[in-house]
Amino acid sequence: MTSVIELEQIKAILQALDVVPLMEEGFVAYSAGRVVVPPVGEMIFEDPPGDVHIKYGFIKGDDYYVIKVASGFYENRQRGLPGNNGLILVFDQKTGEPRSILLDQGYLTDVRTAAAGAVVAKYLAPRNVRRLGILGTGVQGRLQLEYLGRVVACREAVVWGRSQDQLDAYRREMEPRGFRIQTTLATEEVASRCNLIVTCTPSKVPLLSVDQIQKGTHITAMGSDTSEKQELDPRILARADRVVVDSISQVMERGESFKAMQAGLIAREKLVELGNVIARQELRRSSDEEITVADLTGVAVQDIQISKAILRGLS
Amino acid sequence: MTSVIELEQIKAILQALDVVPLMEEGFVAYSAGRVVVPPVGEMIFEDPPGDVHIKYGFIKGDDYYVIKVASGFYENRQRGLPGNNGLILVFDQKTGEPRSILLDQGYLTDVRTAAAGAVVAKYLAPRNVRRLGILGTGVQGRLQLEYLGRVVACREAVVWGRSQDQLDAYRREMEPRGFRIQTTLATEEVASRCNLIVTCTPSKVPLLSVDQIQKGTHITAMGSDTSEKQELDPRILARADRVVVDSISQVMERGESFKAMQAGLIAREKLVELGNVIARQELRRSSDEEITVADLTGVAVQDIQISKAILRGLS
Repeated sequence: MTSVIELEQIKAILQALDVVPLMEEGFVAYSAGRVVVPPVGEMIFEDPPGDVHIKYGFIKGDDYYVIKVASGFYENRQRGLPGNNGLILVFDQKTGEPRSILLDQGYLTDVRTAAAGAVVAKYLAPRNVRRLGILGTGVQGRLQLEYLGRVVACREAVVWGRSQDQLDAYRREMEPRGFRIQTTLATEEVASRCNLIVTCTPSKVPLLSVDQIQKGTHITAMGSDTSEKQELDPRILARADRVVVDSISQVMERGESFKAMQAGLIAREKLVELGNVIARQELRRSSDEEITVADLTGVAVQDIQISKAILRGLS
Repeated sequence: MTSVIELEQIKAILQALDVVPLMEEGFVAYSAGRVVVPPVGEMIFEDPPGDVHIKYGFIKGDDYYVIKVASGFYENRQRGLPGNNGLILVFDQKTGEPRSILLDQGYLTDVRTAAAGAVVAKYLAPRNVRRLGILGTGVQGRLQLEYLGRVVACREAVVWGRSQDQLDAYRREMEPRGFRIQTTLATEEVASRCNLIVTCTPSKVPLLSVDQIQKGTHITAMGSDTSEKQELDPRILARADRVVVDSISQVMERGESFKAMQAGLIAREKLVELGNVIARQELRRSSDEEITVADLTGVAVQDIQISKAILRGLS
């Protein structure tokens, strides 16, 4: 039997589920070379403009393989439809039978991205998180805060955005979830008051500069997943005691590390993969004075793991 | 809303549906360069052995795009499961919304292959089909006869197979469907008695030789879809007045035409695409004396068209 899971059911399952351990296992398997991820399939449409990506892969010897279809049709918004859509198919790795169709409309991609932020915080945040800093008031800005709340005790947050309306909307939504939210239109306020910062914007220019960053801060940069996007002054990566990435091969051509390497400010040798940080104690933060940066571009094993989490939540 | 269609419903819809016109439109669009088919995605598994192929594409300006997942896990038979499985996803080409999930377990691939045989017969069979000849007693051997019955009046068939048991089973299944079936263990009997022949075997050696073929015969070779498989003596293609293929680019590396070109017996210039034969009267059979051959390797536009047919049948 193939189960078909609608978005509402997926959201209900996620409420009761701790996805962080499965996400950790995924990163460890990835960095150990146990994940097979073939090249991404792509279709481009012209009228109306749209793109579709097919990402697929599996952990060797695992129960499942996973195929994710994600689309972006940006004129959808004019029709009152979300710009992004998608679904995930889960198949039995021993027989090829389709086990589950997750009609998540792209939501699980947002969740697995937020869960990665939580994994990073668990291993790299300073012991005493004074305040959580969030750059970006979109879906990911909200989910990051929610998922950070699952791994750190701190409930004080400073949130930066470009519009006071969006900041107000953010505060209205997130305060009932147990956070005290201060909003700001100046990124330096986040840098000066927070020691665990997550950036989740589509920015193409640095939003934080190196002289703003306090000792003992951890920054996770989530927004940059192309070769154009950039959220951090690349000198922050040069200054950082540790730079952790989800995938060394991916950051060779995208993300903050790519920008910093391109500028000649860091060498590839400085980069450590998150899966190795999880597996090996000595690669983690060694003092509360260190500045650490995590540069996440998104890897297919996260899709595999979030899908497995939903299947476990079902049974 | 995304509809989920199970195999039983798909079979019921197909009973009431004429898929031939949609299949013709598909071949015409393909040969006119209006079909986009990116490279096939692949995953290979080792224990147990299995392979998965992801085929996808669209007709430019059409309503949908289609993604097909097909798997082969050959040890499944030991577990009482079919070796092949699969499903087809149909999305809205204007918005990316998933419209339908066809849980066809690979059946629609069999049907679109059979429907292509019917399309070929419609345009290339001699006016008076004396007897239908089928080589192969498997699923495709049955479906080909069923779909030929939709485009030709003849109900007399000679069927070849390697085992009398399988031939008897074939006859028991197909006679109640309105065909008079004679069975044989000798392919020359098919060649001498039939003037519309379809080969649908996994053979790697020629099953029909050039001296067996009568004037006025049409042969459709369905079985060979790799560079190793072969059902026809390549001299048949040299002797033929017309050689029609589904995709010139595909037969450069697989199928009967590939073998005949490799042997230096025909030139690429002899090949005509089926879509052009449908679109242009002058490319069809011009007399009842001609020998014609169609070499079909299977193209993704067939998956697109059979899926659209099911969606039309639904509404």
